[in-house]
Amino acid sequence: MSILIKDVFLEKDTADVYIEGDRFRDIGRDLKYEAAEVIDGSNKAILPSLFNCHTHAAMTLFRGYAEDMELYKWLSEYIWPLEGKLTERDVYVGSKLACLEMIKSGTTFFSDMYWHMPGTLQAVREMGLRAALSSVFIDLGDSSKAKKFRARARRMSREAETCRGRVIFPLGPHAIYTVSRESMAWIAEFSREQGMLVHIHISETAREVEDCVRQHGKRPVEYLEEMGFWGPHVVAAHGIWLDDREISILAERGVTIIHCPASNRKLASGTFNYSAAKKAGVRVALGTDGCASNNNLDMLEEMKLASMLAKSQDNDPTAMPAAEAFACATENGARAFSVDAGKIEVGRLADCILVDLNHPQMVPLHSLVSNMVYSGNGGCVDTTICNGQVLMRGRHVPGEKDIVSQARETVRDLLER
Amino acid sequence: MSILIKDVFLEKDTADVYIEGDRFRDIGRDLKYEAAEVIDGSNKAILPSLFNCHTHAAMTLFRGYAEDMELYKWLSEYIWPLEGKLTERDVYVGSKLACLEMIKSGTTFFSDMYWHMPGTLQAVREMGLRAALSSVFIDLGDSSKAKKFRARARRMSREAETCRGRVIFPLGPHAIYTVSRESMAWIAEFSREQGMLVHIHISETAREVEDCVRQHGKRPVEYLEEMGFWGPHVVAAHGIWLDDREISILAERGVTIIHCPASNRKLASGTFNYSAAKKAGVRVALGTDGCASNNNLDMLEEMKLASMLAKSQDNDPTAMPAAEAFACATENGARAFSVDAGKIEVGRLADCILVDLNHPQMVPLHSLVSNMVYSGNGGCVDTTICNGQVLMRGRHVPGEKDIVSQARETVRDLLER
Repeated sequence: MSILIKDVFLEKDTADVYIEGDRFRDIGRDLKYEAAEVIDGSNKAILPSLFNCHTHAAMTLFRGYAEDMELYKWLSEYIWPLEGKLTERDVYVGSKLACLEMIKSGTTFFSDMYWHMPGTLQAVREMGLRAALSSVFIDLGDSSKAKKFRARARRMSREAETCRGRVIFPLGPHAIYTVSRESMAWIAEFSREQGMLVHIHISETAREVEDCVRQHGKRPVEYLEEMGFWGPHVVAAHGIWLDDREISILAERGVTIIHCPASNRKLASGTFNYSAAKKAGVRVALGTDGCASNNNLDMLEEMKLASMLAKSQDNDPTAMPAAEAFACATENGARAFSVDAGKIEVGRLADCILVDLNHPQMVPLHSLVSNMVYSGNGGCVDTTICNGQVLMRGRHVPGEKDIVSQARETVRDLLER
Repeated sequence: MSILIKDVFLEKDTADVYIEGDRFRDIGRDLKYEAAEVIDGSNKAILPSLFNCHTHAAMTLFRGYAEDMELYKWLSEYIWPLEGKLTERDVYVGSKLACLEMIKSGTTFFSDMYWHMPGTLQAVREMGLRAALSSVFIDLGDSSKAKKFRARARRMSREAETCRGRVIFPLGPHAIYTVSRESMAWIAEFSREQGMLVHIHISETAREVEDCVRQHGKRPVEYLEEMGFWGPHVVAAHGIWLDDREISILAERGVTIIHCPASNRKLASGTFNYSAAKKAGVRVALGTDGCASNNNLDMLEEMKLASMLAKSQDNDPTAMPAAEAFACATENGARAFSVDAGKIEVGRLADCILVDLNHPQMVPLHSLVSNMVYSGNGGCVDTTICNGQVLMRGRHVPGEKDIVSQARETVRDLLER
């Protein structure tokens, strides 16, 4: 497969971009290649596609199901009972809707943590995105569950080979309050031994920290540090309630924090301190979290919100400028998951979007990055390419109608079960 | 002109909606009317269109021009020098782009404060929206300017008649720090005498309050209260730095506060206290502010942000539920400006939108209002109707291409002047 994109706006000028196989092969003026597909890039800008580094894709099925309520009531009366009924097929259908939404808003990579993961894998396989799929591990204190988890982790690794390198399977210990100390220590060791990434929720609520201090005599990051948990192979979602010492541990260990501004605001969990993390040298990427607490998967919205929160938290309009927010949503995510994408450069994986410069929210074009972060939304994306394959063109994604009606039917059925 | 919308989703059921002239005339099942236009409403929901109650439309021309910088530098080095070069034609072109963006994101009313207002009026006339246009009044201490302003106010009122009642002209005293005490007192009196609305910025920054206390010995709301300024005919943008006494004055006087969450965050101005205003009984509506500080005019984004800020400010996920955010963006705005719209009801003005229920961000449909506030963006709107006229259908707005290219040319020319 080869694609030649003609006359596309790249940074400050117009260029041709040639993709062969899964990578960018040439960028320049008046390129002459016999490509299988030629795309007219005029009035479009090429940009790296977006990395949604923390979500629960299948939860699109719960979008709008339970709103504006206290966290425990939300979980125990609404989310958990419905989750308890989910089958692998439901997860497949919900993940497919999520993939559709992500493709339509310019995201080609997502990092997921959920259960019935083969369902999500099937959706990713069919929809053509790149993903890091973490089967959630919860033992609620019973560390014997680790064995089962280990077998599952190995099986998933074998599955990865069926996806042409587009999928990886990080270990997914849910959080310190749902995974025993022994299992956590095992995960710390097993991940290093197997060279696996680890995806965890950390310090999302004040209560998590209080409970940890009471139970273990130290704060969450220190508690895990003690067992050699942290390293550059760990991505930690939220990281809201961190003190200076914890931030410096995460910086030193090369951990990436996944900031989820919309979810944190909607659940009133607290505010991640971007400037403190940046100052300490912690890598920050962005995530939407699941659709039950956001309620969409639009990374353009997430960038804007992240920047606005940083500005108002610091009482400083210069905090988190547009280019930083954009880097958090692209190259920082790529680095965290060791994906050789996140930039439009010869040799990199061809994961990119073409943005419609005639969309009113992209006019005028004083600054493309600023328009992306502060003005645009997912609807400004015209074309989405992942791994050298066109997933959307002219806002058309093959099979969209069926995905939407399947999701509707599945929800109807789920509510009646 | 008459429109029959067939089989559209209204609240919880499917109905037909008949519009004749500028109003909804009938709502029910299987309506039989010979309408000039029949719209298939299947897989669409009908909702009131949105009210953007504080903006500076022509500033779309500055979208992304100056970002991520300290307020005074932003104003003095970037915004003011460019504004100084604006002609009435530039304002017309910028306002037209704004009208296009608003129509495409479901907004049919906007309240504007700017200069060269005949340019904005011309844009509104051509694009078919409803608007409250306030020529900005700034005397910088020289109260003799009020005379000129008075003549302008009268001229604009006559112009209104050419717009079939779609346009009103509130007085637009900019703020207490740019308008002298004498002029402010004159505006207080003149507005009552003429039955005119008044649109003002109030307590947007902490500095405004400090300066007012130093200069006048009282806080801004009290300073204006003393001259009988406040009443139900006043809409006040921002209202961030208000104490309890000021909030209760605004409540008692029936003032509407226009909350502009995106702009307030982006400029790091502070956080409007929605719950305090609600508790005191102050009416709250929403605005995007201008595109130099937002950077778009998407009221769906504004609703989400308003709700998320209220939740996190109160540390309470039940604060500002979706339905309240939606009311702020529709009926509260309509009431503030005495527009008989904001609800889908027989007899009301036919200002409405049809939302595409097949848009992935609208699936599933556990709650339409929740999907609108937390998940959707302007791109989910399929059809926009104002005053019984179709302004957009199937996301197509007549003349869109020309509006976009005119805006581009105007910006190029403006930067070279």
